[in-house]
Amino acid sequence: MMPGIKIACTYCLFLLLGFAVKADDGHALWLRKRPANPVNVVSAKQSPILEIARKELQDGWLGSAGATFVLTIKKDRSIRGDGYRFDGSGVQANTELGILYGVYEVLRRQQTGLPVMPTVSNPSYDRRILNHWDNLNGSVERGYAGLSIFWRDEKDAPAVTEKDRSLWLEYARANASLGVNGTVINNVNASPRVLTRPYLEKVKAVADIMRRYGIRTYLSVNFSSPAQLGGLKNSDPLVPEVAQWWKDKTKEIYALIPDFGGFLVKANSEGQPGPQDFGRTHADGANMLADVLKPYGGIVMWRAFVYAPNDNDRAGQAYTEFVPLDGQFRDNVIIQVKNGPIDFQPREPFSALFGAMKKTSVMPELQITQEYLGHSNHLAFLAPMWEECLQSDTYQQGAGSTVARCSDGSIYPQRYTAIAGVANTGLDTNWCGHTFAQANWYAFGRLAWNNQLGSEKIAEEWLQLTFGPEDAAGPAPAKEEWQQQFFLPVKQMMLESREAVVNYMMPLGLHHIFSVFEHYGPGPWYGPKGVRPDWTPPYYHQADTNGIGFNRTATGSNTLSQYKEPLHTQLANPATCPEELLLWFHHLPWDYRVKSGRSLWDELCYSYQKGLLQVRGFQQTWDKVEPYADAARFRKVQSKLRRQCLDAQIWKDACLLYFQQFSRRPIPFDIERPVYDLDYLMKLNPLTLQVFERNARQHH
Amino acid sequence: MMPGIKIACTYCLFLLLGFAVKADDGHALWLRKRPANPVNVVSAKQSPILEIARKELQDGWLGSAGATFVLTIKKDRSIRGDGYRFDGSGVQANTELGILYGVYEVLRRQQTGLPVMPTVSNPSYDRRILNHWDNLNGSVERGYAGLSIFWRDEKDAPAVTEKDRSLWLEYARANASLGVNGTVINNVNASPRVLTRPYLEKVKAVADIMRRYGIRTYLSVNFSSPAQLGGLKNSDPLVPEVAQWWKDKTKEIYALIPDFGGFLVKANSEGQPGPQDFGRTHADGANMLADVLKPYGGIVMWRAFVYAPNDNDRAGQAYTEFVPLDGQFRDNVIIQVKNGPIDFQPREPFSALFGAMKKTSVMPELQITQEYLGHSNHLAFLAPMWEECLQSDTYQQGAGSTVARCSDGSIYPQRYTAIAGVANTGLDTNWCGHTFAQANWYAFGRLAWNNQLGSEKIAEEWLQLTFGPEDAAGPAPAKEEWQQQFFLPVKQMMLESREAVVNYMMPLGLHHIFSVFEHYGPGPWYGPKGVRPDWTPPYYHQADTNGIGFNRTATGSNTLSQYKEPLHTQLANPATCPEELLLWFHHLPWDYRVKSGRSLWDELCYSYQKGLLQVRGFQQTWDKVEPYADAARFRKVQSKLRRQCLDAQIWKDACLLYFQQFSRRPIPFDIERPVYDLDYLMKLNPLTLQVFERNARQHH
Repeated sequence: MMPGIKIACTYCLFLLLGFAVKADDGHALWLRKRPANPVNVVSAKQSPILEIARKELQDGWLGSAGATFVLTIKKDRSIRGDGYRFDGSGVQANTELGILYGVYEVLRRQQTGLPVMPTVSNPSYDRRILNHWDNLNGSVERGYAGLSIFWRDEKDAPAVTEKDRSLWLEYARANASLGVNGTVINNVNASPRVLTRPYLEKVKAVADIMRRYGIRTYLSVNFSSPAQLGGLKNSDPLVPEVAQWWKDKTKEIYALIPDFGGFLVKANSEGQPGPQDFGRTHADGANMLADVLKPYGGIVMWRAFVYAPNDNDRAGQAYTEFVPLDGQFRDNVIIQVKNGPIDFQPREPFSALFGAMKKTSVMPELQITQEYLGHSNHLAFLAPMWEECLQSDTYQQGAGSTVARCSDGSIYPQRYTAIAGVANTGLDTNWCGHTFAQANWYAFGRLAWNNQLGSEKIAEEWLQLTFGPEDAAGPAPAKEEWQQQFFLPVKQMMLESREAVVNYMMPLGLHHIFSVFEHYGPGPWYGPKGVRPDWTPPYYHQADTNGIGFNRTATGSNTLSQYKEPLHTQLANPATCPEELLLWFHHLPWDYRVKSGRSLWDELCYSYQKGLLQVRGFQQTWDKVEPYADAARFRKVQSKLRRQCLDAQIWKDACLLYFQQFSRRPIPFDIERPVYDLDYLMKLNPLTLQVFERNARQHH
Repeated sequence: MMPGIKIACTYCLFLLLGFAVKADDGHALWLRKRPANPVNVVSAKQSPILEIARKELQDGWLGSAGATFVLTIKKDRSIRGDGYRFDGSGVQANTELGILYGVYEVLRRQQTGLPVMPTVSNPSYDRRILNHWDNLNGSVERGYAGLSIFWRDEKDAPAVTEKDRSLWLEYARANASLGVNGTVINNVNASPRVLTRPYLEKVKAVADIMRRYGIRTYLSVNFSSPAQLGGLKNSDPLVPEVAQWWKDKTKEIYALIPDFGGFLVKANSEGQPGPQDFGRTHADGANMLADVLKPYGGIVMWRAFVYAPNDNDRAGQAYTEFVPLDGQFRDNVIIQVKNGPIDFQPREPFSALFGAMKKTSVMPELQITQEYLGHSNHLAFLAPMWEECLQSDTYQQGAGSTVARCSDGSIYPQRYTAIAGVANTGLDTNWCGHTFAQANWYAFGRLAWNNQLGSEKIAEEWLQLTFGPEDAAGPAPAKEEWQQQFFLPVKQMMLESREAVVNYMMPLGLHHIFSVFEHYGPGPWYGPKGVRPDWTPPYYHQADTNGIGFNRTATGSNTLSQYKEPLHTQLANPATCPEELLLWFHHLPWDYRVKSGRSLWDELCYSYQKGLLQVRGFQQTWDKVEPYADAARFRKVQSKLRRQCLDAQIWKDACLLYFQQFSRRPIPFDIERPVYDLDYLMKLNPLTLQVFERNARQHH
């Protein structure tokens, strides 16, 4: 067992107050050390990874004391990739990594009280990858848990310390315990410098650690690196010198890192360079890199997140851009597609690209870090959002063509399958800022392994691994009491939490009405002259005195036509369009009657109010579990829920008072009145909300 | 009619929005101009004051058109002082001022729909005085409505403009309409400079205006003026040169202002100089000034607001200091006693000095400005608080010896009777900052005239004078509709408002747990070393792990013994002590059972929650009356109620989380959870709450 467990008891303080209180700093994540029984681990083969598997078993075995557990590497056609077969007496796999994953699964089942019955488990995706938007100066774009665990501001002489290696090892173990087998360790807005020798040497140091847990290291690359680093005239992918430069660089990388995973590319997107700068297509650019990587088994993950200011609907552009290129990509190119057509909003429909690219490998990109869901201040369990996307039916090959099945090789013959999650880790002691944000890292890993897992099951697992009766001050309660008093209400809170965020931020299909820079507070009014319209909220909500919502039907942008029948017809009719996506696809009058019988305006009001009340409910739930939780995590979560409630109030007031200027209708009188003036909220730079940033971060 | 009516219509803006909206800037107070009928005013005598009376009748007559109304000055033994007799056909009085007051009463009755039946009305107090804590540099101590209307920063050359005179005339008229007949125009923390010639000439200019409406001008004086201004060695009242200096100065004043009212003195109080500096008593000091003023008919108002840091209970000190001096004061000295024993808290018991000084004139000092009740941000109608004090029974001369009767000459033979109200006026266009703060100025004036008036009647009058069906956008609703939809709910809100403040700030007899400097937000924790304990909240709340409250019984400070039987016995027993004063007199355990059956801790929690819910209710009430109110005042009040709700939340969270450290009990789970962390609120300098100060003040 790695040195990841820290139980810091502040007895001196609490004893003075008359309490005996336990404190957990959260660093152990879902891998908390619990008293284990002795186990006899048998393995015909020895290797470093098998040794890890043995040690995990010895440190965490909750089966019968003195049992024998056999690790068997043997070809088995029912096992794919690093999948495994297990029962109470052992794990069998095709690979060493499969053994390790199987061991983690057995231990997880023991700890969560699930039966360990004969089972085969195969991964949904071959490549299960975290994307770190970590900059070389140590900052993390959209990171809310401290600075980068990989980089710090060191000019061009990045160093590696023992402390770094130790932390990376903990990180690798946490990922391996979920089956994550890849990590992109620098920002998609990539600095060319990462490809210079000093940085590549640091990448090698990271990769050497990652490899111990079966994790491949990848890099984001800047498409203009040949010009910027190599002194070439340009970075046109069809210029032989450019391809040669990439060939040489790739050779250099693989010499350092033989199992290097490949490149992630954000090209011609939000100001990043790309092949279109030279009149080439995305396929031209991606294929050039794919050809260079091919000899080494590397892949290119080419992001589809592209949009231009001159288009009338950002939501349709990735589809317009990429579908015509279907069939033109090399088989080691995977198009990396965000779950929704815009940008990680609290709710979006699935991206129409899923299932529409039939001859091209496509991988979903999910966002674990809560860029648009309250950063690390709000409790928002994201598994329901991802489950909603993965289980959405594209109908591209008939009913049942879910996003999951369209991306995991079930429907289309992909050479590679993969899934990416934008990480939420940083140097904060508890890795993620918010204790419950750890659950999103966990959920991504579990869904990447099994894209059919339900949110409830994931929440149950995580809660049982992360908390327990032993956290209570004083004697541990019976498991049954803990289940009733802690586990069930907290699970309920988790499962409801993402919908609460939708309700108090942007219900009924509203989207991207955030304060534009930090994507935290509300900013539906923001739209100064000279700013690209598609970077301003009014572009998305389209509120006027007639109504609200983005008309994406045939009478509007017609982006709706990108969805396949019968979905298209269902969405195109407001009466059959799911109400939670109503204003995503339709501009509707304020007095439009929704299913509740209320007017659209009233429904909007009740939705925001509901969100606020949900957060108040979470506060109640959490305060009630105080006797069952350790003091340190209890208080941090309590404090963050308070902030969330304040924020929900701000969101509700800002949006209702702003939209009321258009609706010209009263807020129904059984709804709590706003407590802020609109002009105050409009002047309130969301960054000044830092006045509320009360809890100093603990850095590792 | 004076030029006090300003209807500023911002049609241009609102018409664009499709509304026709009326806007009232509030400057006209309760004297709004309404369409009047012609009236024939008959008066045997002519004088400037009678001419004002005639003009008011002609501008405001709502009786039958063409009626005759007779003004008659005639001695009548049933009429006292400036009292009057009136019916529908005329007013009779002993004095011209009595005529004017009678005219205002007739017009008030016409406007509020009351019958004008034959009635005699005599004032409860001879001198009905506003105290302005206005500094010579133009600032106003505890003023929340802009700078002083009397002073501005002009070094030693104060000037008088026509704009000043015009404003002072409006001010005088507003006061006269209520029967207020005196004004102290400088701060009780007095600068000696006010007695220099340039300032006295400005005082004369003010007095010349005030006199037109029968208002006497008074000055606060600094007891060390002889030393500071006259160059004397000291200001010992028994030194003949000191008395001579005051004699000369008084002569100079009366030469300028023949009807000058007298001096208000804050001596040996909170660092102000006084006779005790020279080993003399308050009586020595007051009597010296009284002798000097006597020839001119002037009076000395000597404040009893004294307390020393070395005493164990500030609440008892005024009594201890002054009762032994009873009988030693000249008959033109009036001891000015704050309503409660501490300092204008949202709720206090009456000061034990009332009724206890049997051979000395005593006058109540009320605070109109909301120093401790949310400044000009919170809606708090103070008439119920003052009524509660005035109707409190002291039992000093048997049952029925109310504070009112102990101070108005009903029980004790006072040479002079008087009442003072610390004013809430400033240069803000609406005079008082908050529209509803005008009601407190109004209520003080009405209670000063008739200390038996009920709060509800005062609220009804003020509302009908200050608002009306004509404020509605579009056609005016019927009077009946306006009564149901506006008048009744808003009246209810006003009558509940002070109790709401008590609930969310300091229920159950808690007091002085404010943030100490600005007396606005909560600060129950404040108590740094080196600060006098009686200037820190823990001195007052005495919270510890055993319980909370100030033990003023015989086992504590025994200040309770200053109250007369049977009150003393009633208060001394927690079971019979009114619950709203429980913690004022008792330190009780957290699990003490209150009448609701709840523990003291739970009751505290529910009280704070109730206060917050009351403010939310006020918001509901006010938002519902929008169609009946003019847009300008509606929006300002709406905005201030929002701020009040935010503040109530802060108060509730701060006090419950702070006291919870001692009670060690959970906040009952059906109560809304705190949304702030205690450490955040403790760090929050209340002045930084200015971030919420959204509405730029309009200066006159």
